[in-house]
Amino acid sequence: MRKEGNAQPMFRVAVIAGVGLIGGSLALGLRQRGLAEHVIGYDASPEALQEALALGVIDEARASSGEWLRGADLVVLAAPVKALPALARELAPFLGAKATVTDVGSVKASIAREMEELGVRQFVPGHPMAGSERGGVGNASAALLENAVWVLTPTETTPLTALSRVRRMVEQLGAAPVVMPPDAHDNLVATISHLPYLASLALTHMVARDERLSLLAAGGFRDLTRVASGDPRMSRDMVVENRGALRDATRRFIRQLEHLAETLDQPDELLAAATEGKRTRDSLPVVKRSLLPPKFDLVVATPDRPNQLGIITNALGLAGVNIKDIEVLSVREQGGALRLGLETPDDVTRAGELLRELGYETRGRG
Amino acid sequence: MRKEGNAQPMFRVAVIAGVGLIGGSLALGLRQRGLAEHVIGYDASPEALQEALALGVIDEARASSGEWLRGADLVVLAAPVKALPALARELAPFLGAKATVTDVGSVKASIAREMEELGVRQFVPGHPMAGSERGGVGNASAALLENAVWVLTPTETTPLTALSRVRRMVEQLGAAPVVMPPDAHDNLVATISHLPYLASLALTHMVARDERLSLLAAGGFRDLTRVASGDPRMSRDMVVENRGALRDATRRFIRQLEHLAETLDQPDELLAAATEGKRTRDSLPVVKRSLLPPKFDLVVATPDRPNQLGIITNALGLAGVNIKDIEVLSVREQGGALRLGLETPDDVTRAGELLRELGYETRGRG
Repeated sequence: MRKEGNAQPMFRVAVIAGVGLIGGSLALGLRQRGLAEHVIGYDASPEALQEALALGVIDEARASSGEWLRGADLVVLAAPVKALPALARELAPFLGAKATVTDVGSVKASIAREMEELGVRQFVPGHPMAGSERGGVGNASAALLENAVWVLTPTETTPLTALSRVRRMVEQLGAAPVVMPPDAHDNLVATISHLPYLASLALTHMVARDERLSLLAAGGFRDLTRVASGDPRMSRDMVVENRGALRDATRRFIRQLEHLAETLDQPDELLAAATEGKRTRDSLPVVKRSLLPPKFDLVVATPDRPNQLGIITNALGLAGVNIKDIEVLSVREQGGALRLGLETPDDVTRAGELLRELGYETRGRG
Repeated sequence: MRKEGNAQPMFRVAVIAGVGLIGGSLALGLRQRGLAEHVIGYDASPEALQEALALGVIDEARASSGEWLRGADLVVLAAPVKALPALARELAPFLGAKATVTDVGSVKASIAREMEELGVRQFVPGHPMAGSERGGVGNASAALLENAVWVLTPTETTPLTALSRVRRMVEQLGAAPVVMPPDAHDNLVATISHLPYLASLALTHMVARDERLSLLAAGGFRDLTRVASGDPRMSRDMVVENRGALRDATRRFIRQLEHLAETLDQPDELLAAATEGKRTRDSLPVVKRSLLPPKFDLVVATPDRPNQLGIITNALGLAGVNIKDIEVLSVREQGGALRLGLETPDDVTRAGELLRELGYETRGRG
């Protein structure tokens, strides 16, 4: 709809490496919103490429990597999480020095490390939190990414310009960028996505081979085991990739369970826990974007020294301040400035104090 | 629809003690299907009684217990699980010796013991596995109980005639009776209902007060925490009442989780577990009744000695044979016979062998 006939598209040549549900949806978004002049799909599967061409998802299909990649100014690694490291190693030798590179994997610390080792400097690790029961490019749609939370996890070596570019792309695709360090992301998804899968799996195993149990299994049980019904291989790969953080989350979950089991003898305490649980559950956003509170901005002057972004996002991440948005205001002057979109005026105050202690100049902007 | 203008209703005077969602639905079912000539509602809340009268759920309202109860030949305790023992103690002195008594509580061993201590002989503990997000008599409907699995949990002292009568009532209400010992029931619901609640509550507590977590919480997490969104007091009472069995189930669940966390280092084993989990989940019945396999019958001759029913259901329960249906074929002759509806021809063979070892005569009937 919008952006058709844009003066200047963000990217001239965009390469989508892995033309599945997410890669295909991204390609469609880039094309429909006029963000890229030319979209090349790269995939090991000739069938996926053919389908993507036939559906108008991509302009051009490539079945093997090579020198043609040097012409790209955007490269998105959109393979399944387990295949990302190999894909990164395959493409790295052909990436132009100025190409912005990002990925869509559900685990971030490992791919961030991999890219660093490969010397891909313009890499911004990303994770659009979108999906569908039905995979494949045939189910791709630009709408899939609209209103999705899209986590970006810059490291200490991620250039501000690359982050700023990917953030703008995410916004133009209609999604909501959230910035945090890779480890913080992996811990969060361990808790809200990978642990629920493991718990769901453990529950199904408790009724396996017991006909009476599965006969009586009621609505609540069906709700809690729905995620165990996804593709076993994809689910397995996802949790194995994030096993460190997932083990931590599982340990914390077991402690919670043991505590609740103890409160079965303290009905008042259990009622308080049940009431708090209901309050938390009922406050979970249904559609995330529309429930995002208005943003409050903090502008931070950044000296012309390396790692500014890493220092700032890590410091705020550790302090529990949620960076909802981030923008590079000026990079060509001496030093520059970052605009951080925060959630509450309190966050602006807290983040400002914290960053001034670290020697930054800051300015709130409501 | 059916049974309108029945030759002879099953019950002359039915008393529903507790006119809420389940009690009201039962009252409507009894009236609409012509199973009771006269339905009396008893409730401590005058508002509930008034609403039940206005909606045509009951014929007569009673706000206090008393001698009038002696006229009832069916008394259903339909109060919340926590209030059942007090209700039982209140009504017991007024129950006629021949009145069939049942309840609808979600935990069975405790109320079975209570009734035994009170000397209520014609008591058949029951649990219709039906419910709705919205409680109260205003949401009652005979359809709520149709197709529901309705567990009956006779003890060793439950008279065969009483069980037979309640079983017939359940069937006439359009529900599917399943017979098992009280402890077996409590262990089953601990696993498929109370443990999922506890797990759901533990998960919500892991994201409480962390705005970033609840911001990212995706579909799977919402599914797994839905049951934490129910009424905290009712949920608390339910799990506290069944705390023994729930603690066991929680321990088994934690062992499953720990085992899965270990297999994060054995991807092949984890894939097998994920595949089995999906198979189990996908085989859970969506609408229970319609997926019940055809029944296979075993007829058991029962000598005229006490506890026959308890001995038989306990023996089969321990052996894992699921009694789907039970019927008393003749009780006026010397001794009598029981028809057990089982799930598979194998079950018929197994149960027959088991019962013959215990000295019963049996006969399969396919």
